[in-house]
Amino acid sequence: MLPIAVDAMGGDNAPGEIVAGAQLAADEGIPVVLVGQPEAIGETSLEVISASEVIAMDEDPTKSVRTKKDSSLVRAAEAVRDGRASGMISAGNTGAALAAATLRMKRIKGVSRPSIATPLPMFGGGTPNILIDAGANVDCTPDLLALFARMGAVYARARYGVEAPRVGLLSNGEEASKGSPLTKAAYPLLSETEWQQATGANFIGNVEGRDLLGGDVDVIVTDGFTGNVALKSLEGAAKEIVNALLEAFDSSDDARKGAELLLPALMPLYERTDPDTVGGAALVGVKGVCMISHGSSSANAILNAARAAHELAETDLVGQLTAALATP
Amino acid sequence: MLPIAVDAMGGDNAPGEIVAGAQLAADEGIPVVLVGQPEAIGETSLEVISASEVIAMDEDPTKSVRTKKDSSLVRAAEAVRDGRASGMISAGNTGAALAAATLRMKRIKGVSRPSIATPLPMFGGGTPNILIDAGANVDCTPDLLALFARMGAVYARARYGVEAPRVGLLSNGEEASKGSPLTKAAYPLLSETEWQQATGANFIGNVEGRDLLGGDVDVIVTDGFTGNVALKSLEGAAKEIVNALLEAFDSSDDARKGAELLLPALMPLYERTDPDTVGGAALVGVKGVCMISHGSSSANAILNAARAAHELAETDLVGQLTAALATP
Repeated sequence: MLPIAVDAMGGDNAPGEIVAGAQLAADEGIPVVLVGQPEAIGETSLEVISASEVIAMDEDPTKSVRTKKDSSLVRAAEAVRDGRASGMISAGNTGAALAAATLRMKRIKGVSRPSIATPLPMFGGGTPNILIDAGANVDCTPDLLALFARMGAVYARARYGVEAPRVGLLSNGEEASKGSPLTKAAYPLLSETEWQQATGANFIGNVEGRDLLGGDVDVIVTDGFTGNVALKSLEGAAKEIVNALLEAFDSSDDARKGAELLLPALMPLYERTDPDTVGGAALVGVKGVCMISHGSSSANAILNAARAAHELAETDLVGQLTAALATP
Repeated sequence: MLPIAVDAMGGDNAPGEIVAGAQLAADEGIPVVLVGQPEAIGETSLEVISASEVIAMDEDPTKSVRTKKDSSLVRAAEAVRDGRASGMISAGNTGAALAAATLRMKRIKGVSRPSIATPLPMFGGGTPNILIDAGANVDCTPDLLALFARMGAVYARARYGVEAPRVGLLSNGEEASKGSPLTKAAYPLLSETEWQQATGANFIGNVEGRDLLGGDVDVIVTDGFTGNVALKSLEGAAKEIVNALLEAFDSSDDARKGAELLLPALMPLYERTDPDTVGGAALVGVKGVCMISHGSSSANAILNAARAAHELAETDLVGQLTAALATP
């Protein structure tokens, strides 16, 4: 198996945590290659593809990819394109990763726009639900939502082994009559049987914001604007609740004693919803595996992203997507 | 002060909890009048406006309001219109309450569409942020978002005493360049100084889903589709987290002991985010006070809604909105 190209320069904790994560992956037998400035990466036994430039977190995505041709992000995408790597990972500028992967790897036939598929933190446990599009495409057509449904279904099976993914359309009510002009126009497209047969998916109709983290759906389809707002709304709520809990846990001697007794019961909950454990988002629709980790990724997050990228390369996500999109 | 008209027949726990809540309000000196079927309401010392029909939770809003002219919802709205009540409350069919209030009370001059302003549960404490529109208007124009911004600012001051409300536009990024076609077109309208001077508001630019429950904004403006998705996303996340916590609290003897010690520290957090405490949403833009409580409202929720409606009538929300919308 070809190695996973790891953008060593992307992320708040780059290159230290990124290199450490790549080493952890290599230690458990996942082949990796670092991409970045050798002097910044420092001493390592891992293979390094040299790239002299770095795209910063806040740079304009398309412009930076066009001008910084020797950046770690662009070189990582080229490594996949050129058959030097089986996939890539970056914790850097998400928009630039999207642009680099799209421009260098090119799109799969039938994909007008690649999309970001994000696993959601399941507080109740179980396989993460997939939110697609989580932010790549702000302005969408009904056809695009239908494309996201297909790609999301294929991804849920390739990534999490969901055999018959239940696909829901994010709306403001469960009834088919509810929705925005966009979702109302997408609904009949998602109701068609052909794509469901081609992907093994079941379209279950509209779902609501409260279903995002529930067990009744596997793939939630939406435009990138609504997806971004929904994802950040639930992440924000989780953060506010955790902060309020931590404050309560430290509010008195009794509370501190109680929190200590509860700790072993709370740890599994913490672990299964930690972004570093849940893993990164995937850019789907390009001719290559591309995992996008969050900016604050630790070594552990990079390890998990490398595992996911390696698995997706092994199960041939791109081939599966190509086949599913080749049927009408 | 005229009484608050309470729709005794609306809600999952009607009429029992509704009547009990109205009685609690009366007990603390808030004048109330029940609206509904006298035989269902039963024995009470409260004044009753008789209404023979009931609009069910799942009935078509506009059609039910048009055909059930003697329903409790329609009669409650008429009581406000006719000067028999200073405001109304319903825990029933939200869409029908919106239709009844709009059709019977009529819109304030300059209001093309009334909107639902919902207080958000602040886990960190403090004054609730206002989300407007939380679901009344799925398909919005930039002008409508500008209207919601005005009404939301006036409402935040009237309801919570926020003197200079910070108004944010819900988007997929903080930069002014981020957004959907709708929010990008609304941004320059919200940036205009005239409406900010007329309402005392400060437009702070784009805000994200993660800001909904934070302390850096008071009023979050969005279309009813996005608002509904965002609200239900955070409510869903909160529910999943609480369920997972309750499970952890009961997972072992140590955990149960710890939870018992923590209980006094957790109760204030529970209370300040309980929907019954946070209170109902308001329909703003009609010529009358109209509070919409959630369907599962308890007596305590109705008491809080009655308090809010009474305060809003006393501070003349309608007059304040009328004045703010009369300036260009």
